[in-house]
Amino acid sequence: MAGSTSKVTGETVPRIAAARPPAEPSSPEQHDRRQRILRTAVRIGSEKPLERVQMHEVAKASEVAIGTLYRYFPSKIHLFAAVMAAQVDRFRDEIPPPAPATHPEDVVGDLLVAASKELLRRPVLATSMLQSANTANVATVSDALKIDRTFSAIVLESLGIEVPSVQDVTLVRLLMQCWYGVLQSSLNGRMSMADVENDIRMACRLLLASRSNAPKPE
Amino acid sequence: MAGSTSKVTGETVPRIAAARPPAEPSSPEQHDRRQRILRTAVRIGSEKPLERVQMHEVAKASEVAIGTLYRYFPSKIHLFAAVMAAQVDRFRDEIPPPAPATHPEDVVGDLLVAASKELLRRPVLATSMLQSANTANVATVSDALKIDRTFSAIVLESLGIEVPSVQDVTLVRLLMQCWYGVLQSSLNGRMSMADVENDIRMACRLLLASRSNAPKPE
Repeated sequence: MAGSTSKVTGETVPRIAAARPPAEPSSPEQHDRRQRILRTAVRIGSEKPLERVQMHEVAKASEVAIGTLYRYFPSKIHLFAAVMAAQVDRFRDEIPPPAPATHPEDVVGDLLVAASKELLRRPVLATSMLQSANTANVATVSDALKIDRTFSAIVLESLGIEVPSVQDVTLVRLLMQCWYGVLQSSLNGRMSMADVENDIRMACRLLLASRSNAPKPE
Repeated sequence: MAGSTSKVTGETVPRIAAARPPAEPSSPEQHDRRQRILRTAVRIGSEKPLERVQMHEVAKASEVAIGTLYRYFPSKIHLFAAVMAAQVDRFRDEIPPPAPATHPEDVVGDLLVAASKELLRRPVLATSMLQSANTANVATVSDALKIDRTFSAIVLESLGIEVPSVQDVTLVRLLMQCWYGVLQSSLNGRMSMADVENDIRMACRLLLASRSNAPKPE
């Protein structure tokens, strides 16, 4: 998926989002343009909910033609899934060294709590990112797959698991689902930040207790 | 929330969803009308995605005035959260007796797998229900709170827990988040039905192992 660049020759705006895979930037200029679009999406998406974000507005504020915007991001779902993917990438780059003698499942808990606080600082944007990542079909939105993979890599690295078992993969998937759910519940008024912390740490302890490299009970 | 009926005197359509709590039916006729609307929403919502469902179309097919529809369901989010609440209520009424000698966490697993199969039979409707239940704010959409409570009651009853501890409440909440996440992942092409079953059962076993009435390890 990720490597298939589409050849767009005309200037027509693709109306049907799923009809064609989004273009991947290949030159430095294209990369800069894509980054500029993502920064604009962060700014506009922090101010208004997904349904009120206009692709025209994003194109104008990014100083790109509307056709260019649609070429990279065929829909708002693609755009905000990409914003989420970039955010999760940044979490991976900024992982602090764990405090000494911290249990691996608490290392993961600390990471997810810190990431949650960071995301929840901009609740409107977080809502759009989660909604996009949640509803994006992995077959058509390559960033949705990228988010899953980066999340999985962060957790497995923190646990010191190099070759995950089938069960490890399942545990990480369930943990990600809990994390999304907790974030969503916070965003829609179901839980306080204290509950967010508590729930994330409990999910880490309970789910990760049966990872393949967990210490055996004595 | 649930008991506060709004007095709507005019025929104007409330444009701002959150401005007024939805009306609760009090007479048998009102109850019938609400049920008729919900049945229409199931039918139309099984055919087209949430963003293409028109409130006008739902009103017409339910043979109610558009003002009446908005009085019960101020937005599509309210409407499909109510469809989900009715569905979860039905799951509660139809719980089969557990097979003899089944572990309580597997009883819950069986229930959730059966409920998932039922929901995933109509994927378009399931997507709209989940999206609505997920994004509904509990302060303004009373059915969102109702779904949480009914889900919690189903799980606690199946586990034989009458007075849940704080930890029990957290476990049930995390389990619900896993369940939503698994359904969502199935709907957006991330996992097969076999994975759905496997993940739900594993979430039940791992999360529910530390419930307050779990057998102590020997």
